[in-house]
Amino acid sequence: MTSSSIKEEIEKANTQAVERLMESEPHWVGMDLAGKVITGLKDRMLLHAGPPITWERASGPLRGALIGAVIYEGWASTPEEAEKLLAKGEVVFEPTHPHNVVGPMAGVISPSMPVFIFEDPKYGNKAYSNMNEGLGKVLRYGAYGEEVIKRLKWMDKVLYPVLKATIDEYKKDQGKGLNFKNLIAQALHMGDECHNRYVATNALLLKEIAPYMFNTGIDRKDVLEAYRFIANNIIFPLNMGMASAKVMTLAAHNIKYSTIVTVMTRNGTDMGIWVSGLGNEWFTAPSPIPKGVLFPGFKEEDANPDIGDSSITETAGFGGFAMAAAPAIVSYVGGTAEYAVENTKRMYQITYTRHKYFTIPYLSFQGTPTGVDIRKVVATGITPTINTGISHKEPGIGQVGAGIVTFPMEPFKNALRKFAEKYGI
Amino acid sequence: MTSSSIKEEIEKANTQAVERLMESEPHWVGMDLAGKVITGLKDRMLLHAGPPITWERASGPLRGALIGAVIYEGWASTPEEAEKLLAKGEVVFEPTHPHNVVGPMAGVISPSMPVFIFEDPKYGNKAYSNMNEGLGKVLRYGAYGEEVIKRLKWMDKVLYPVLKATIDEYKKDQGKGLNFKNLIAQALHMGDECHNRYVATNALLLKEIAPYMFNTGIDRKDVLEAYRFIANNIIFPLNMGMASAKVMTLAAHNIKYSTIVTVMTRNGTDMGIWVSGLGNEWFTAPSPIPKGVLFPGFKEEDANPDIGDSSITETAGFGGFAMAAAPAIVSYVGGTAEYAVENTKRMYQITYTRHKYFTIPYLSFQGTPTGVDIRKVVATGITPTINTGISHKEPGIGQVGAGIVTFPMEPFKNALRKFAEKYGI
Repeated sequence: MTSSSIKEEIEKANTQAVERLMESEPHWVGMDLAGKVITGLKDRMLLHAGPPITWERASGPLRGALIGAVIYEGWASTPEEAEKLLAKGEVVFEPTHPHNVVGPMAGVISPSMPVFIFEDPKYGNKAYSNMNEGLGKVLRYGAYGEEVIKRLKWMDKVLYPVLKATIDEYKKDQGKGLNFKNLIAQALHMGDECHNRYVATNALLLKEIAPYMFNTGIDRKDVLEAYRFIANNIIFPLNMGMASAKVMTLAAHNIKYSTIVTVMTRNGTDMGIWVSGLGNEWFTAPSPIPKGVLFPGFKEEDANPDIGDSSITETAGFGGFAMAAAPAIVSYVGGTAEYAVENTKRMYQITYTRHKYFTIPYLSFQGTPTGVDIRKVVATGITPTINTGISHKEPGIGQVGAGIVTFPMEPFKNALRKFAEKYGI
Repeated sequence: MTSSSIKEEIEKANTQAVERLMESEPHWVGMDLAGKVITGLKDRMLLHAGPPITWERASGPLRGALIGAVIYEGWASTPEEAEKLLAKGEVVFEPTHPHNVVGPMAGVISPSMPVFIFEDPKYGNKAYSNMNEGLGKVLRYGAYGEEVIKRLKWMDKVLYPVLKATIDEYKKDQGKGLNFKNLIAQALHMGDECHNRYVATNALLLKEIAPYMFNTGIDRKDVLEAYRFIANNIIFPLNMGMASAKVMTLAAHNIKYSTIVTVMTRNGTDMGIWVSGLGNEWFTAPSPIPKGVLFPGFKEEDANPDIGDSSITETAGFGGFAMAAAPAIVSYVGGTAEYAVENTKRMYQITYTRHKYFTIPYLSFQGTPTGVDIRKVVATGITPTINTGISHKEPGIGQVGAGIVTFPMEPFKNALRKFAEKYGI
């Protein structure tokens, strides 16, 4: 092919990729146990966020979360026992993304954990995520103490059946699942960027589901407990937003000639990306340490390198890329409202289009920067900047803050090199 | 007194007035029928928004709403009969504000209408408002057809008992009413300005009350109908925000030497203000015609001069004064996001302080412009600019759009003149 016809192929492929990404319609359609619905998640196996990693190279918070999940599953009764099983490979762990799963921070999901099922009736993709535990001492930030396991068990026993019955009631009445893309689009007009700020989404979600939740026939005490847990955990919809983003990016994945990034994720040691036209091949580099606001009592040296699948939100055109829609977020992740606007503006330089449905009132209702193009990243020298939570680097401690992180250039360069090789440019 | 000591007295009085305005804690504490709880609202009497007005000078939408209320009460069965009663003074009408009542647009409240009761435990004030009917063909925009009366009757029969039982349940559980100031403060970080945009407040309100609403023991069909009515009417919390603002401004009213405006309101013919240090004396001028976005099928000449008590929100430091917090509102009232920010900035020039609790993320979390000072209005030549709905000028038609209106200077000048006279300056 001539270089101009290859360029045409790329434009065609990218136009199709972002079109599918934007037209995808993620719906929350059900709840089930991870081991029952996630393809390839076997017994004595765990999933984790980010690119593949060995026990030896795994960071503190990832180790902590893996240990916690082993205890939660009852495969071991002490952290020491759990560690042994993991180190010896008697419990294995694999990255989430190849299983169409996303999890915030450590992103550890075990077979007995309940998960959200998201489905896109348009392009037929499915994705899964776990239920959000709240902030502070929680499994996904690497904590595994008694209170962590106790909360997870309560989520299994109370929250899960209530949510399962709620979405079943909803579907019975509405004839289909809950369209989460609509909630995101509305929330972007209500000060959420839908990565670290989900205040509006939380209220909109409860507004949608409350009539069904209080009609499940489940004991009112349990329903109220579940309702209050969600109401008080303003980040609760994060995992649902992530599953939505995964469904969207799946629609854009595996398109021949496309240079659009379909996965950006971190495991606390490495960060890695996938590119649509390059399939499931990982391009990785060391994960940077986020800058931001630390909780009282913690220092900069406590922070672990960036971790989590939550950057799937930016990959889908919201989250940090939509910061201009969420000036109030700077009180959580640091910076100023001006910075929030500048970051969104900078991301337009490395994305392929402006989102059709996700718009930013402050920028004259302009669409969010959507579809990171590895060619633009390499050409401009600008890499994606995202919002993120900050985990303590030691296992067992948990969240120490929240902030902003800019990805390294290397994976984008390597992906572009591989792209040139594969497509003979 | 010397002029410098008078100036000191004014500063002291104004500081106290805005302090009380900002520290006031409006709570929704109950529901009842207007005739039972509003002092001075007698049989065969109606209340209306704005300064006092005669039938002869009343505008179309106000006439329409008064006619509708007479039919609703059953005092007449046709518009012609109703009109006769009103013209002959057999049904009387008085302005809302002296009764501690506020109503959007025509603001017509009759004895059988259910009202929200708002109370401030801190300064002991109470205020009332009716329930919001939604947009379009509704009484408050001067429509009085069958569908209007039917909706009002449904609100009496279904919505009112559900809301009454809900707030009673809430109080039983929480030990006090629902703090509406908290909702406003949160909503200002979620893209509402809390005059014409109440999208976030609506979701936050339902999030708060849903668990109680679905526990009233009232038939589920009725509760669901009430819930859906509120959920689908995103402006529903307006009347509650107005009652909150009335409670706040009451705390700032009747302070000797204070030049702070405590009422700004319009009846569709005149607009009028009260000033804290001048008690309940009206200073009025012809009401201007709002500029904005008209619904399809309507022309500029259809618009009535500005009408309604809803500018109590700006009087209390939010609404149009907080437009910089609500860029998405420009799709409803017209203008651009830049204009929204500029308007808030301009209002700082005529207000006494920045609100302690109502802040604007986009302006580095600066407090909203609070407490219109008639001295500053006269000195700068800048009058308050507010958001507003636009009513058709003929009775019986309803809402034709929404927009922005800037008040005339005359009432502020006359009030300052009276102030100088009264306090011997």
